[in-house]
Amino acid sequence: MTYKVGCCQYDPQLLDIKGNLEKMEALLDGVKADLIVLPELAASGYVFNSKAEVDSVAEDGLSGPSATLFKRLSLANNTSYVLGFCEKSGDKLFNSLMMVNPNEEVFIYRKTHLFYEEKYWFQPGDTGFNVFEAKDGVKVGLMLCYDWVFPESARTLSLKGAQIIAHPSNLVLPWCQQAMLTRSLENHVFSITANRTGLEKNGDKELLFTGESQVVSTKGVLLHRMSKKEEGVFIIEIDPELAFDKAITEHNHVFNDRNPDFYI
Amino acid sequence: MTYKVGCCQYDPQLLDIKGNLEKMEALLDGVKADLIVLPELAASGYVFNSKAEVDSVAEDGLSGPSATLFKRLSLANNTSYVLGFCEKSGDKLFNSLMMVNPNEEVFIYRKTHLFYEEKYWFQPGDTGFNVFEAKDGVKVGLMLCYDWVFPESARTLSLKGAQIIAHPSNLVLPWCQQAMLTRSLENHVFSITANRTGLEKNGDKELLFTGESQVVSTKGVLLHRMSKKEEGVFIIEIDPELAFDKAITEHNHVFNDRNPDFYI
Repeated sequence: MTYKVGCCQYDPQLLDIKGNLEKMEALLDGVKADLIVLPELAASGYVFNSKAEVDSVAEDGLSGPSATLFKRLSLANNTSYVLGFCEKSGDKLFNSLMMVNPNEEVFIYRKTHLFYEEKYWFQPGDTGFNVFEAKDGVKVGLMLCYDWVFPESARTLSLKGAQIIAHPSNLVLPWCQQAMLTRSLENHVFSITANRTGLEKNGDKELLFTGESQVVSTKGVLLHRMSKKEEGVFIIEIDPELAFDKAITEHNHVFNDRNPDFYI
Repeated sequence: MTYKVGCCQYDPQLLDIKGNLEKMEALLDGVKADLIVLPELAASGYVFNSKAEVDSVAEDGLSGPSATLFKRLSLANNTSYVLGFCEKSGDKLFNSLMMVNPNEEVFIYRKTHLFYEEKYWFQPGDTGFNVFEAKDGVKVGLMLCYDWVFPESARTLSLKGAQIIAHPSNLVLPWCQQAMLTRSLENHVFSITANRTGLEKNGDKELLFTGESQVVSTKGVLLHRMSKKEEGVFIIEIDPELAFDKAITEHNHVFNDRNPDFYI
């Protein structure tokens, strides 16, 4: 099957939910695809200085401003979206992502492995790694940014049947984009890493985000990579059914050759 | 601490145990180091056409020609060696490696994940992934070639305390050398991949081996890589104690941040 997938890469402005959602809406205007992945914390920005700041941009996953906008866009463009958002659930804050489908389904993943000062603001995720159906029943596994460091994240999603790993990110370290080629290859799964751009400052703190949002094939081949700084959307065509083929050679298979008896 | 490690890369000749051992001895003559890794099936060659051929080059791991030579070299050069060999144990054949120490200790690993026609000739390994002390007590984890595809291999060795992963290989696919940067990075462990060179033919079959033996740092940085075709030995200095530092940031740690409750 042919499936149009891509990334929306841009530079969110800290604490400006309204402006960021308007920016994403403008970037996605008229872009018809099957699955588009956006950055981690796409509407809130990243470099927080207090829990009060985080709380000020925290949203309900099903009815907050991000969910409301992306349900509308999903219906209008007949596209599934995956984006990170700052989630408030009861009195808990999570670094979460939502996958929104054209039929208004919303699936939530709460980040398992928290990076750096995220440990000050967020609870560790309690959802675990799950696979959900996006548009046309394609199985999408959900993980966020720093989860990439742990091969168990992509492995778990792939063993649960993911054809595509959707991977919103706010990357500041230099390794992820190249390592995701290995993640795709070792699992024969597509991966879509959507990163943000920009230098974000808050008080004494600043972080430079590395862009280079990308799609990687099931054989670990880079299909498209944006530049470090550009803002915009790219869409390419893939065949998600290729992810069902786990053969490396006629005698080898990335899953059947595993021997968990010997693994910690 | 300073530890001299390296690879011996060369082109073994099929079924020529005596010639191959002489070649390795010549390449290693006078090379003083702490740990040198050689290719998989370093004395036997790789492209077999029958179990009888495999049997003809199979050795006892403790007293065969490879063990005998490398115990002598280890004592003479005060160096630990890791090399692949074709093992016969009772009536079973294994694709194995030995680590030989200057005190005549020999440790055996039997390959867990068999590649391609190896499944015709060898039993799957029954040792699992283990860590042993090489010269001066440095902890070395042992794996062979295609084991690299499975992140569980290097992960298990690292969780068991490996400072260095010794990785004899006969690589024919194009991905391993780059992927080993990710394996080192995700575990903060040194890796030494020693590959062979040459085009080996047997009847209608031929395989081209890709060389590029390498050492990778605990941060996933390539410290040295040989060319695709050169034969020889290289030695570099590393500090194996760096592998005890699992911190990614002041708030992040490649092992403590793991959440196995959510992993398959």
